[in-house]
Amino acid sequence: MNNINSIGYEISFQNSLNQLISFIDNSSYTKFFILTDEITTVHCLPALEVRLVGRTYDLIEVSAGEECKNLDFCIGVWKMLIDFNADRKSLLINLGGGVVTDMGGFIASTYKRGIDFVNVPTTLLSQVDASVGGKTGVDLDSIKNIIGTFTQPKAVFIAHEYLSTLPERQILSGLAEMLKHGLIKDQAYWNDLKNSDLSLPSAELVYRSVEIKNEVVIADPHEKGIRKALNFGHTVGHAVETFSLDNDKRSLTHGEAIAIGMVCESWLSCKKSGLSQNELDEIVGVLMRLYPKYNLQLERADEIITLMRKDKKNEGNKINCTLLVSIGNCLIDQICSEDELRESLEFYAGL
Amino acid sequence: MNNINSIGYEISFQNSLNQLISFIDNSSYTKFFILTDEITTVHCLPALEVRLVGRTYDLIEVSAGEECKNLDFCIGVWKMLIDFNADRKSLLINLGGGVVTDMGGFIASTYKRGIDFVNVPTTLLSQVDASVGGKTGVDLDSIKNIIGTFTQPKAVFIAHEYLSTLPERQILSGLAEMLKHGLIKDQAYWNDLKNSDLSLPSAELVYRSVEIKNEVVIADPHEKGIRKALNFGHTVGHAVETFSLDNDKRSLTHGEAIAIGMVCESWLSCKKSGLSQNELDEIVGVLMRLYPKYNLQLERADEIITLMRKDKKNEGNKINCTLLVSIGNCLIDQICSEDELRESLEFYAGL
Ligand SMILES: NC(=O)c1ccc[n+]([C@@H]2O[C@H](COP(=O)([O-])OP(=O)(O)OC[C@H]3O[C@@H](n4cnc5c(N)ncnc54)[C@H](O)[C@@H]3O)[C@@H](O)[C@H]2O)c1
Ligand SMILES: NC(=O)c1ccc[n+]([C@@H]2O[C@H](COP(=O)([O-])OP(=O)(O)OC[C@H]3O[C@@H](n4cnc5c(N)ncnc54)[C@H](O)[C@@H]3O)[C@@H](O)[C@H]2O)c1
Ligand SMILES: [Zn+2]
Ligand SMILES: [Zn+2]
Repeated sequence: MNNINSIGYEISFQNSLNQLISFIDNSSYTKFFILTDEITTVHCLPALEVRLVGRTYDLIEVSAGEECKNLDFCIGVWKMLIDFNADRKSLLINLGGGVVTDMGGFIASTYKRGIDFVNVPTTLLSQVDASVGGKTGVDLDSIKNIIGTFTQPKAVFIAHEYLSTLPERQILSGLAEMLKHGLIKDQAYWNDLKNSDLSLPSAELVYRSVEIKNEVVIADPHEKGIRKALNFGHTVGHAVETFSLDNDKRSLTHGEAIAIGMVCESWLSCKKSGLSQNELDEIVGVLMRLYPKYNLQLERADEIITLMRKDKKNEGNKINCTLLVSIGNCLIDQICSEDELRESLEFYAGL
Repeated sequence: MNNINSIGYEISFQNSLNQLISFIDNSSYTKFFILTDEITTVHCLPALEVRLVGRTYDLIEVSAGEECKNLDFCIGVWKMLIDFNADRKSLLINLGGGVVTDMGGFIASTYKRGIDFVNVPTTLLSQVDASVGGKTGVDLDSIKNIIGTFTQPKAVFIAHEYLSTLPERQILSGLAEMLKHGLIKDQAYWNDLKNSDLSLPSAELVYRSVEIKNEVVIADPHEKGIRKALNFGHTVGHAVETFSLDNDKRSLTHGEAIAIGMVCESWLSCKKSGLSQNELDEIVGVLMRLYPKYNLQLERADEIITLMRKDKKNEGNKINCTLLVSIGNCLIDQICSEDELRESLEFYAGL
């Protein structure tokens, strides 16, 4: 597993924590800051700390969870950076899941108009997805990632060992993106996944997922075109995720929501873009076996559709989806009507 | 006065408001938003409104003044953009002084990871300075511009007519940067300024100032080197400005603070970088004639120096200044000790 070259930086997979230490030792940063959440401080910082012995850094910890991915927490971290006299040649090391890497990336990209940062993604989701693409951001008023920048990290260090402490539900959350990578671009990979033990996907499966995402991102860094392929499952999924965050005591993970989105958008694909009934059945079978059924409140479907309309990927009043032609092939910019989207929610609810 | 080419965009000076309308009419944006403050709504919006007849746009107004250049106001504007369903192909038109153009630029550069914006600077300061360079940002905890991005506008429209309603104190504020442009790069321009009626600098003088700033910025867009020339007067000036914002009922304008900073840093130049006593006297004479004397509280000089240390332009613990070699020539990255900086404040206080 060689390092993967992304946009101006490398993603390492082997001995990654040692590679991070080399990166630090060979750099000329004036100060180092590590951003964690309260859980990665416990589970992930120790493996880094033993390697950092003798080096000086400051730790900044935020609370864990999507509820904390907001501007209030950014302000807290910015103030700590100010208090620690972080200058323009400081490095921020984001150690955590997608919340920490997205928010830390945004914080770094706007502190003093931009300081360098590296990501050490510690969840499956952040390893296979947030690790590539340069998207940083935070939520506002429960609209996900509505405030952010496109800024590449200076490096990404993926350590498979971190996944060993990850709860099953978080593994499943990342797995949804891996399945998506197969569905949109690589039928063989989809088959590999289908036939693997997915309670802890192997390092090789993680690697292939990052490769696929990286190919798509490099072809279209600013999401003007083909990169929208990665939105498969996300038009419906994001809206369901936001709805769940606002309404459920125990809200859906990103991957659980995307799995629902992929069921709905596969149904739309079958209706609109040529996905065969057989392939639809196969996709729905795999997803419904892996993910618990969510109680979609159909009487509130309008609220979910309103959330889709506010999605930042839309232009004007159209609702845009990426749909499948077959497993491994997709089409971007497929306009779906509100009725079609409502029907797709009904399809899911009726399963 | 031809348009000036800056980094990927043009700055217009002639019939600028009509040029803005052409820009709008020839574009393919889905929505237009105009950001004003309560004063530019009164003084500057009407001239635009008459030209906008028949076109659709939404107005977003913030309160006026540096106290409003903060994240709370950003959040307010971001929420309005969300409510107005602003999508990624929306255009934000910032109509106001440096507060509106800096904050509006930051808001646009981070909303949905970046939408386009154009600036219509309506103060002298924003015309000769904030119009070039791609710096966006807001203050946090009274640290100026500590949060922001480097993002270029799509165009800048400079209308000299807007200066007619500007209070004298605001004219003087912009004038300080024009004098700075002469001091660091163009002795002839300094002499022109010295011999002009400066109660309302002519369009030609404004134009030359933008030209000088643009040359410096193009040579070094990310402030890695020569662009630091523009920091002349700003190491001391920014700190005095922040101190005044925190302590004075009627706080200094940016230009008044920079004028103080230029006196102090000219004194440092005479001491350290070869500025002659004659030229020091000339500079001090012009600045003290134009700007009211500020009552620097020397017993609190330490607080001002602490603010200099927190300045985002510093690296590590060094305090960096741009100093003059002669009128029209400068040197960047001149390290000054805290004692030297304190003495320069004493020099000003003793004038
Ligand atoms: N930038 C991108 O391209 C991109 C892509 C996908 C998702 N995201 C974002 O990522 C976020 C979701 O990512 P996530 O699921 O990693 O969220 P997360 O960061 O909230 O992590 C999930 C939970 O796992 C905990 N955790 C992290 N590492 C652990 C470990 N090694 N062992 C045990 N527990 C651990 C965290 O503390 C948290 O409680 C969302 O905000 C989403 O918007 C961004
Ligand atoms: N981005 C840059 O490169 C850059 C450069 C210099 C200054 N700045 C920033 O600009 C700000 C200062 O700029 P400023 O002095 O323009 O501040 P400002 O925007 O606060 O304007 C000063 C006052 O003049 C009013 N005003 C604006 N246009 C007017 C008009 N035509 N007639 C009457 N009143 C008018 C405003 O409402 C305000 O009350 C600071 O925040 C500074 O950090 C940025
Ligand atoms: Zn996703
Ligand atoms: Zn200035």
